[in-house]
Amino acid sequence: MNKAEEFFARRAHQNDILLDRADLSVKRFFALDNTVYKEGEIPAKYKELLGLVASTVLRCDDCITYHILQAKKEGASYAEIEETLAIALSVGGSITIPHLRTAFDFLETLRN
Amino acid sequence: MNKAEEFFARRAHQNDILLDRADLSVKRFFALDNTVYKEGEIPAKYKELLGLVASTVLRCDDCITYHILQAKKEGASYAEIEETLAIALSVGGSITIPHLRTAFDFLETLRN
Amino acid sequence: MNKAEEFFARRAHQNDILLDRADLSVKRFFALDNTVYKEGEIPAKYKELLGLVASTVLRCDDCITYHILQAKKEGASYAEIEETLAIALSVGGSITIPHLRTAFDFLETLRN
Amino acid sequence: MNKAEEFFARRAHQNDILLDRADLSVKRFFALDNTVYKEGEIPAKYKELLGLVASTVLRCDDCITYHILQAKKEGASYAEIEETLAIALSVGGSITIPHLRTAFDFLETLRN
Amino acid sequence: MNKAEEFFARRAHQNDILLDRADLSVKRFFALDNTVYKEGEIPAKYKELLGLVASTVLRCDDCITYHILQAKKEGASYAEIEETLAIALSVGGSITIPHLRTAFDFLETLRN
Amino acid sequence: MNKAEEFFARRAHQNDILLDRADLSVKRFFALDNTVYKEGEIPAKYKELLGLVASTVLRCDDCITYHILQAKKEGASYAEIEETLAIALSVGGSITIPHLRTAFDFLETLRN
Repeated sequence: MNKAEEFFARRAHQNDILLDRADLSVKRFFALDNTVYKEGEIPAKYKELLGLVASTVLRCDDCITYHILQAKKEGASYAEIEETLAIALSVGGSITIPHLRTAFDFLETLRN
Repeated sequence: MNKAEEFFARRAHQNDILLDRADLSVKRFFALDNTVYKEGEIPAKYKELLGLVASTVLRCDDCITYHILQAKKEGASYAEIEETLAIALSVGGSITIPHLRTAFDFLETLRN
Repeated sequence: MNKAEEFFARRAHQNDILLDRADLSVKRFFALDNTVYKEGEIPAKYKELLGLVASTVLRCDDCITYHILQAKKEGASYAEIEETLAIALSVGGSITIPHLRTAFDFLETLRN
Repeated sequence: MNKAEEFFARRAHQNDILLDRADLSVKRFFALDNTVYKEGEIPAKYKELLGLVASTVLRCDDCITYHILQAKKEGASYAEIEETLAIALSVGGSITIPHLRTAFDFLETLRN
Repeated sequence: MNKAEEFFARRAHQNDILLDRADLSVKRFFALDNTVYKEGEIPAKYKELLGLVASTVLRCDDCITYHILQAKKEGASYAEIEETLAIALSVGGSITIPHLRTAFDFLETLRN
Repeated sequence: MNKAEEFFARRAHQNDILLDRADLSVKRFFALDNTVYKEGEIPAKYKELLGLVASTVLRCDDCITYHILQAKKEGASYAEIEETLAIALSVGGSITIPHLRTAFDFLETLRN
């Protein structure tokens, strides 16, 4: 398994535990959270970049990794991902830098 | 003056006071913060929507108003702005709702 | 109209504008956000206090006012609301104090 | 030692180092932070759930684990803890999901 | 009354209401929060600047105003306050800019 | 290599990857973020303590470690660092405690 497959496998496993126990409202939230990233007036690729910038300014490494992988799936280039991270840095300041480091490390792994 | 002109006039006035007094690093930050929204691999319209989603999850009304107006200037439709706000709500949760109310009120004003 | 009626009237008006324009996912989120506070294993009164402490540590005045009024409706005493705010202050620190001031002012209005 | 005992042992060890060096104001803060969770108008069980929802929306895994264990000690059921996490998810949005995953994993460990 | 006197008068009035109703733990927190800014190994002036930078990255206008006035009382120069705000901007990013505008406006009022 | 040397080596390595790929605006941000901590009206030592308190209330362990090491380089005593952390705890509340534990552990390592 490559890095991306590992990430999705672990995530699926954890979601299974969570959704097995969680009540209906949590299940509905998960469904809803999938819906908002679907192709609409805004193409799916840009929606994933919206998810990425939000995840970065809120400083959630797991969410950053997820949206990078989803953005790649939807056809985003490395340059588009990097421009998104540059906006996150400007909005969120130097406190986001450790998360940018992790993101750029992960992008490097994907390139190789 | 309409709502948008008022907003930009007040903003320009406050920035003048700030930049008149602020030291070089602050001036440079302001310049940098303009640069990241410039047309690049990602079109300027989507960059403003990236700014909008980041501002909404971080719950800054002033920043939300600014990026809505900039997104409109760059050709974003109301539907695109509303899809962006829907992503912000899903990522940021119900604590963002008061800011969504303000945003939708402002959008209604722009429509009229 | 008293303070509480005014608050709910303004809120209802703003929600009407928002929900009139918002897409399906936003409407669903609003429905979901109502569901989680319904009587369950945890009585509705304590669920509103959970909403109150979350709103206070996240520093949202509008949400604080809402959950205070809902908690009162569900039978919470002033002492219970004040103990909830004391927990919020300890978890969230002195940065929450301006919001506690607003909350205690509002509670004083309700008492009179 | 089971998971809960391990957690409290590690925590006690770290607190010892901290409180050995920290000045009087830090020691007082620690004492104060214990006080607010004591049985009062609100029973201790619900106070721990208040601590849990605050910890979840503020996204602190260590604090989540602590308040889950304390809530269990005070007699909270799994269903009550899960309803509390559902409120946290609704208030705090999808950015809290990685912390919910960790919380549900931990609850699964406690059940076994 | 000048701006600073007005600010402290309003603050004192609100604190009176709060402390009249609040329980012992809240009163103790207020006492504690005063203690940490007292002259120690770090001179009081720099402690107020520490309070100012923390308030700015956490984006609390009321707290920013308070620590600016306290820093002035302890002998901080405008340049020292502005350097502190420059650090806050770099750490916290452009989302802090609306609060910097308010801070620089307030500093301008103090100068006149 | 001691703890401090390890930290700076890892940091330099990650920054190299990031800055190799990042666009001009990110490089400029990094340069800017160095500038604000340079000796000015406020001595460099206190500027590092300003960085430390901001990092602590924003709960970034990596940033806390960095500013502790920089503050030591600029001549800060352990007592000054501990007073800074006490202010962070009061402003940011008990949610910062896990980060204080990590900070005090790290300080203990430096002492030995």
